[in-house]
Amino acid sequence: MLSETVTEPSPLWWQRQDLGFDADGALTLAGHSLARLAETHTTPAYFYSADRIKAKLRMLQMALSQVGLPYRIFYAMKANRFMPLLGLIRATGAAGIDACSPQEMDMALACGFSETDISYTATSVSNQDLDILARHPEVLINCDSLSTIRRLGERCPGRAIGLRVNPGKGVGYGGNQLLQYSGSKTTKFGIYREHMAEALSMAARYDLKVVCIHFHVGIGYLPPQLPMWDEVVSDCTWFVDQVPTVQSVNLGGGLGLPHVASDRPLDLDHWAGIIRRHFGPRGVMVCVEPGDFIVKDSGVLVLQVNSVERKQQIDFIGVNGGFNLAVEPFFYKMPCEPVPCRISAAAKTAYAPANLKPVTIAGNINEALDIWAEQVPLPPLNEGDYLAFINAGGYASAMSSNHCMRGQFYERLLYPASAAPAQP
Amino acid sequence: MLSETVTEPSPLWWQRQDLGFDADGALTLAGHSLARLAETHTTPAYFYSADRIKAKLRMLQMALSQVGLPYRIFYAMKANRFMPLLGLIRATGAAGIDACSPQEMDMALACGFSETDISYTATSVSNQDLDILARHPEVLINCDSLSTIRRLGERCPGRAIGLRVNPGKGVGYGGNQLLQYSGSKTTKFGIYREHMAEALSMAARYDLKVVCIHFHVGIGYLPPQLPMWDEVVSDCTWFVDQVPTVQSVNLGGGLGLPHVASDRPLDLDHWAGIIRRHFGPRGVMVCVEPGDFIVKDSGVLVLQVNSVERKQQIDFIGVNGGFNLAVEPFFYKMPCEPVPCRISAAAKTAYAPANLKPVTIAGNINEALDIWAEQVPLPPLNEGDYLAFINAGGYASAMSSNHCMRGQFYERLLYPASAAPAQP
Repeated sequence: MLSETVTEPSPLWWQRQDLGFDADGALTLAGHSLARLAETHTTPAYFYSADRIKAKLRMLQMALSQVGLPYRIFYAMKANRFMPLLGLIRATGAAGIDACSPQEMDMALACGFSETDISYTATSVSNQDLDILARHPEVLINCDSLSTIRRLGERCPGRAIGLRVNPGKGVGYGGNQLLQYSGSKTTKFGIYREHMAEALSMAARYDLKVVCIHFHVGIGYLPPQLPMWDEVVSDCTWFVDQVPTVQSVNLGGGLGLPHVASDRPLDLDHWAGIIRRHFGPRGVMVCVEPGDFIVKDSGVLVLQVNSVERKQQIDFIGVNGGFNLAVEPFFYKMPCEPVPCRISAAAKTAYAPANLKPVTIAGNINEALDIWAEQVPLPPLNEGDYLAFINAGGYASAMSSNHCMRGQFYERLLYPASAAPAQP
Repeated sequence: MLSETVTEPSPLWWQRQDLGFDADGALTLAGHSLARLAETHTTPAYFYSADRIKAKLRMLQMALSQVGLPYRIFYAMKANRFMPLLGLIRATGAAGIDACSPQEMDMALACGFSETDISYTATSVSNQDLDILARHPEVLINCDSLSTIRRLGERCPGRAIGLRVNPGKGVGYGGNQLLQYSGSKTTKFGIYREHMAEALSMAARYDLKVVCIHFHVGIGYLPPQLPMWDEVVSDCTWFVDQVPTVQSVNLGGGLGLPHVASDRPLDLDHWAGIIRRHFGPRGVMVCVEPGDFIVKDSGVLVLQVNSVERKQQIDFIGVNGGFNLAVEPFFYKMPCEPVPCRISAAAKTAYAPANLKPVTIAGNINEALDIWAEQVPLPPLNEGDYLAFINAGGYASAMSSNHCMRGQFYERLLYPASAAPAQP
């Protein structure tokens, strides 16, 4: 069973082995009490579970091993570039890096990845960036435009490259328009079917050998989106079949995870079956580039409650961090579930409907949109309490800004609290 | 004439004395060719016109001087905290600072402002922040909740304070929901009418003297919104009249400026008339906290064109910067007008309808929303050209993130190129 256990919607839907309330009502991640960590360090603070990241990588490996083809995982480091976390991923050996800027490539190298571990996929690529990439011949560059093929060819004739293609369709979490990477509207990404012949002849002109077809056609997709993803992947096989020199396909990222109680986790058996059906007969290597799927649910953002106050008919919980620390709940409508770091009774009692009261959680930025969650039912909260926001491991700290000079935070990678030192 | 000259909508609507094309087709700001600056420095680069900032401050001073009451301007530094720009504003003596975090307050002090120059207005205020504020007794703190009044009172009994109030109505640029600071929906900001008596008795309990009533009820408002703003300000007088110790009213910021050709500049005569009508009889000092109005149109963001490529029916112009450098066009629908830094003919010819072609300007971030402008008619552009984005002086660099590690940029405050050294 590769997928996670499916349960009925519950306010504690996010609980799992390494994340939940202990018998004393303390919310723990990887065996650490988050309230105690928050008291020890300063807040805002992000905490990441090393074991959860490893577990997600293993889930992916097990699913991909069912495909029956060679495979590689490239972690999309734009999701989270906290260096100890990159160091952990490198140490597992389970994944390389998907980089999208020379700075990301440099950081991957700094964390111990080699050039051959790096897949580089960028858009609107500058000559300056290509000059840097030219000095790293083993990095596989997926070109997403004819302009990039031409300018890379001028610098590195004979190099092996990938082509990022665009089938003109895509799938996103809850049909979110902001996350539409390809679709009926022409996007900036990739090479469309009608330009493919020209792209291949441009590559040939510079003796660039096309060894990979790359497409990224979904984001945050979950079970309801898999049939559509299947269809889009099917369309992408056309591109693969145009390239006799192809050695691998890169299916991009976009594997989703639950953000609300009603979301079901991705069925990785089903997912792997789709890949096997389309690419098994083609005998290519299968590459994937997940970011969120690997790190998002490993991480929480812990904030302190500054104020509890009723305004008109709304109970506001004011916290010491705002949308500049995690833009997704505010701009992309992908919520971070708020959970008290301490509850006064066992979870079953504390979360009994009679003990819950709807509250609106407000950040400390002077902007109207700076509301973490509206009318979410929670056990009682007091000034000084800590709140953990679940699913803050991806696209949170990595996208943070210093707006209002509120950009300071602490980050820590958590290993299991109870681990004994290794015996010689 | 306090308002700017009103002209018919034109593709060059943003031109003004210190910003426009010279006879050679070079786009200049404060007499400097932006293309030449971009070649000299690296891009992405923000350039700000010192004279424009001074002119906007003078426009505000002239308008406020018509009100017939003492007045103060507090620049909302969250809009742009580039230190030379703060230094310029301090040097003019025309404005103090509106700060919303201890870090902003510290930076204001670092730039030469004194405590009495600082108005502090924050939300979800923490005890840690109040501990810092307690060490700065001359900073005027506008409390926006009973919780803040209580906790400030515990630390600084007897202090003079302001109260941020919320009339339950607001106005925004184009009715933008994201920018709704107060309105029919209960927001986190300020003290509502039904809580005012309790707020005053809470202040009295700690001997806090309420000397200021603060409200911020609009953002980006322009002539069409002035009648509504008038009405909301009228509602706010109720709060002022509850407080016998009041010495000043702070009308917040929100003064808008044109973002598209069809926008008309704010009529400052009209604006000042509204203030005079409501507060003239009350004899209070009038304070305002503009951010964007002072700095936004002083600044441009210059990016280089990396790629020019037709995909399906769309001509994409790929540039070397994305939404992480200026979030407003992407998330708030407040566009930054793109303008070529060099055109091949006089502006009238280059911008003649026959010479314009609709292009879509795409940033270099791997996200679908990273599109600067869609199908905007521009003169021909080639790889290597520079584009300036107008109205990038506010909420751009200040809110920038290092997403995809694309957060590097250069900033420069421009004084007139032709200024001769001062003679002794």
